[in-house]
Amino acid sequence: MRPVSIAGTFQLPVKKCHPQSVRALGAEVVKGVMAAAGREEVDAVYLGNMLSDELQSQKHLASLVADEAGLAGVEALQVRAATASGAAALRMGYLAVASGAAESVIVAGVEKMSDQSPVLALAKALDAEQEVPDGATMLSQNARLMALYGERYGVAPEAFAGFALNAHRNARHNPHALFQEKVVTREMVLNSRLIVPPLRLYDCSPICDGAAAVLLVPAAGGEHPSGPRVRILASAVATDRFRMRDRSDPLQLAAAGRSAQKAMAQAGLTPAAIDFFEVHDAFSIMACLQLEAAGFARPGEGWRLASEGAIRREGAIPIATMGGLKARGHPIGATAVYQACEIVAQLTGTAGANQLPGPTSALQQSVGGGGATIITHIFGLW
Amino acid sequence: MRPVSIAGTFQLPVKKCHPQSVRALGAEVVKGVMAAAGREEVDAVYLGNMLSDELQSQKHLASLVADEAGLAGVEALQVRAATASGAAALRMGYLAVASGAAESVIVAGVEKMSDQSPVLALAKALDAEQEVPDGATMLSQNARLMALYGERYGVAPEAFAGFALNAHRNARHNPHALFQEKVVTREMVLNSRLIVPPLRLYDCSPICDGAAAVLLVPAAGGEHPSGPRVRILASAVATDRFRMRDRSDPLQLAAAGRSAQKAMAQAGLTPAAIDFFEVHDAFSIMACLQLEAAGFARPGEGWRLASEGAIRREGAIPIATMGGLKARGHPIGATAVYQACEIVAQLTGTAGANQLPGPTSALQQSVGGGGATIITHIFGLW
Repeated sequence: MRPVSIAGTFQLPVKKCHPQSVRALGAEVVKGVMAAAGREEVDAVYLGNMLSDELQSQKHLASLVADEAGLAGVEALQVRAATASGAAALRMGYLAVASGAAESVIVAGVEKMSDQSPVLALAKALDAEQEVPDGATMLSQNARLMALYGERYGVAPEAFAGFALNAHRNARHNPHALFQEKVVTREMVLNSRLIVPPLRLYDCSPICDGAAAVLLVPAAGGEHPSGPRVRILASAVATDRFRMRDRSDPLQLAAAGRSAQKAMAQAGLTPAAIDFFEVHDAFSIMACLQLEAAGFARPGEGWRLASEGAIRREGAIPIATMGGLKARGHPIGATAVYQACEIVAQLTGTAGANQLPGPTSALQQSVGGGGATIITHIFGLW
Repeated sequence: MRPVSIAGTFQLPVKKCHPQSVRALGAEVVKGVMAAAGREEVDAVYLGNMLSDELQSQKHLASLVADEAGLAGVEALQVRAATASGAAALRMGYLAVASGAAESVIVAGVEKMSDQSPVLALAKALDAEQEVPDGATMLSQNARLMALYGERYGVAPEAFAGFALNAHRNARHNPHALFQEKVVTREMVLNSRLIVPPLRLYDCSPICDGAAAVLLVPAAGGEHPSGPRVRILASAVATDRFRMRDRSDPLQLAAAGRSAQKAMAQAGLTPAAIDFFEVHDAFSIMACLQLEAAGFARPGEGWRLASEGAIRREGAIPIATMGGLKARGHPIGATAVYQACEIVAQLTGTAGANQLPGPTSALQQSVGGGGATIITHIFGLW
């Protein structure tokens, strides 16, 4: 396989409601990343999106976005795994460049959730026959995980407050973050509205609009100091039993562990060599379980990394360094692409006030549904 | 890139209404192709499906099907391009094996259209803002193309009858075909119900349920007479202007020509070297335009290949050799995978009564929407 580099990134600010249509948002980031990378042509556009079938009545979005961006003719496909769809598109872009089939691929993610309520469409990430009829939603499933965690390990819901605080602190210096203006205190987190107990508002990422794109190219061999410096070192997908109730231990988040292990083996890295971790903190419990599954904390102790500060920028394993899903925002199909853009910023020393001190490797994970599909990518400097 | 072989195929009979659920159909072909290839493990499942979001309230189908097939843990993703989604999944499977990222990949396609009317969901392949509000559907768009063709070239609708006759003749000997039992005459075709003029019933493929799968593996180097003998020689995707009205000449079907040319360049073949062509005959006009776009007929003369018999099994460029979309059936996301299975049967001499005389190469095309995305694969013996 050829090594794959990221030759450009482009993000739109995440907003509660963007005035443009989903197609226009998609086209804007496609054009934006080409301009950022100084390219006038690309071989392919792979698109991450989860909800346009229902929210925009559009089931052929990759081709539409390519045309709107002035690229009619180019290869364009959509790749998906429910709430991990942006990472699914990243995986296909990686395979296309690594295989030699393409010399330049745009991986774009776009989601416009403000057109109508996304709640029922989001629940289609779960089992429509055996979970949704019993009232399961993404919220209720994550609430169940958080409750189970609390029961097993004797951890109170308040123990998770550090995840939201870290995310909101980091979003303050990210110009693309939804909650850039918001100062969030521990009291606000602990006293926020109960959504589905024990989940409170600040345990949940927001519904929002956004789009982002990265441009992938083959990494040049030898020393090319002028070329793109960030490589995708690994790409791995794993599934779990689809229904949460069929998993022998839902708190194990087996697909996270499995895909992380595959990715670390590909990259030849251990958790100790990872400088930061862009987790899928759609819910604070999910960030906690991912830290455990990927090997950064023992089972039952992921929350300590938040309460003791290890996840902060100055900590041992920073997460959500630009605000995460919680505070940058979680425009579903775009989320992993935002993470990729943020990772490139950190690795190239352009993360501004949120810059980590000289990181050289980053882990990124996306969670599909309640963990039925989890996708891991590792990025590194060369 | 590593060469990619097909190590197994499996098809369920296409039916007007399968009693099983979409997940069960998908799981059955995944298990079926593993049994056919004598495998107990695979690295990944890539799924083609278009309509489960609306018809089965399921947006996470690849992971669900993998679990139902007993493969929880494996990589599973869904790839799509509206009505070309099966071919989109095939492309990702090809890239995964060609890149070296996977040693064994199942490409499965499944569609269950009998649960509720798919007509509105199918129209989401078109532009929801600028085509559908004007009444555009897949039927009306293809009717428009057929009318335009008739006006420009002075060809009467009757000239297309040969496409349906050929498809139904070939379906009679395909045990997986929807219309296996049906004897269709020229009079039946010409006198069939007008759907959207000039489209008659026999110009249109049927709404149906089906699932199929192929297993892709790296092709062994050197001589391995016991290994799989069919290779994927080329894989290419192209788009066109998304809205039909924006195309300088909609009858050119530019994405078909573009993807066919890319594929033929990859395979080092010309149209003259292609032994048969599994076209996307969702509508007879589409088969005609594909024959022209891929270089088998001059513009305005594709219909002659039908009326003069060149598309029949004994003709110069057989199409729809096992019944095609028209008569085998067109369970959307499964269709390209059925075509791949049928091509393997023809190339390995196991196509039964429909066997072509010693073919060594085949072209396969899938059309997304009204031609906004077209995917071409070439298969060959080694």
